[in-house]
Amino acid sequence: MKKAVVLLSGGLDSATCLAYASSKGYECYALSIDYGQKQLAELHAAKKIANYFQAKQHEIVNIPIGKLGGSALTDQKIEVPAHLESDEIPVTYVPARNTIFLSIALGWAEILQANTIFAGMSSIDYSGYPDCRPEYVKAFQELANLATKAAVEGHPIRIATPLIYLNKAQTIQLGDKLNVDYSITVTCYQADHQGRACGYCDSCMLRKKGFEKAGLQDPTRYQPQKNQ
Amino acid sequence: MKKAVVLLSGGLDSATCLAYASSKGYECYALSIDYGQKQLAELHAAKKIANYFQAKQHEIVNIPIGKLGGSALTDQKIEVPAHLESDEIPVTYVPARNTIFLSIALGWAEILQANTIFAGMSSIDYSGYPDCRPEYVKAFQELANLATKAAVEGHPIRIATPLIYLNKAQTIQLGDKLNVDYSITVTCYQADHQGRACGYCDSCMLRKKGFEKAGLQDPTRYQPQKNQ
Repeated sequence: MKKAVVLLSGGLDSATCLAYASSKGYECYALSIDYGQKQLAELHAAKKIANYFQAKQHEIVNIPIGKLGGSALTDQKIEVPAHLESDEIPVTYVPARNTIFLSIALGWAEILQANTIFAGMSSIDYSGYPDCRPEYVKAFQELANLATKAAVEGHPIRIATPLIYLNKAQTIQLGDKLNVDYSITVTCYQADHQGRACGYCDSCMLRKKGFEKAGLQDPTRYQPQKNQ
Repeated sequence: MKKAVVLLSGGLDSATCLAYASSKGYECYALSIDYGQKQLAELHAAKKIANYFQAKQHEIVNIPIGKLGGSALTDQKIEVPAHLESDEIPVTYVPARNTIFLSIALGWAEILQANTIFAGMSSIDYSGYPDCRPEYVKAFQELANLATKAAVEGHPIRIATPLIYLNKAQTIQLGDKLNVDYSITVTCYQADHQGRACGYCDSCMLRKKGFEKAGLQDPTRYQPQKNQ
């Protein structure tokens, strides 16, 4: 059976990605990273999702990059802003996050002799992070082709990003076909400990509009005071 | 003052690299990774070296990839072999190690607004690891140019590998000029808790020959029973 490492944050995209990898017949090894994010609800969601899709194994690796600072997602002193229509990269950007995540996935994939890494980046409805763009993914693939013993010995590890050209509505429609239970996913940048969303951050806005556009019922649970 | 992140394992190469960065006028932020290596003597050495060269800051980040297995350097069940003349990548290879280390360095460099990362890879006297080759470093540079907010905003982070074309003797001669105290560095793959070397692993052999060829006294301390 072919094996894949699937990066699983606990959000809508990575849940869809796991469902997709699973539907393609991969034995899935889910990898979540505890990088010091302020809210841990997404990691709890990741556990539920890995379980729901019967991942062969689920590892939560603790990478304490949050202590180095630099992002509204890890630093208590930087507030998560409301969604803004802007071309600027927002303060929720975490320095080198996807590079770090993909690197760990690459190491684990090589150990497992998995031939594919699935990652749920999208370059359409996204927060403008540089490490979600197709050219970034292509560069990581080129690096991976040189980085590992597996690649040198003729078994390169493929980086698959099936959602990269899908907008949020298309991702949700895909996930809906693949029976993703979006009620257990947590997308919000500042979900509370019960996994309830704020309703106004960048990530919440993209998700909310995605369900509207997809014509599907949004199962997101919102925090009572901010329920909109 | 220009800032640099310097990857510091505690070995001969990274100590030389730190000395070099420092001699070029960089304010140095030393980064060591505790990745579950069996021997911790090199991390103790890293502390001494960071201190010796007055690094502005020294971070030891714990990245528990060792628990995922896959290398003689992290897995108690895989023995570190004696040096072999072979073209094969040895069992001391750690899957995706340099990719993971450089990724963490990239994140920290961006947070610090450092414009350079120094890493002590050599492609001449080395163990044949794929992630020490010049083409690998070039691919990481290309990735870094796409991965960060800093790069998108016109401040790319440079990956400097000043030792990449030096053989071990040349590295030692460079370090000697830069006043590196090699007696505090630990190169051995299985040093004991006092930092004393085995004298027969790949890394020990390269180091020993390097001092011979450089015509300099080798200050390496060997474990008594294996002193050769």
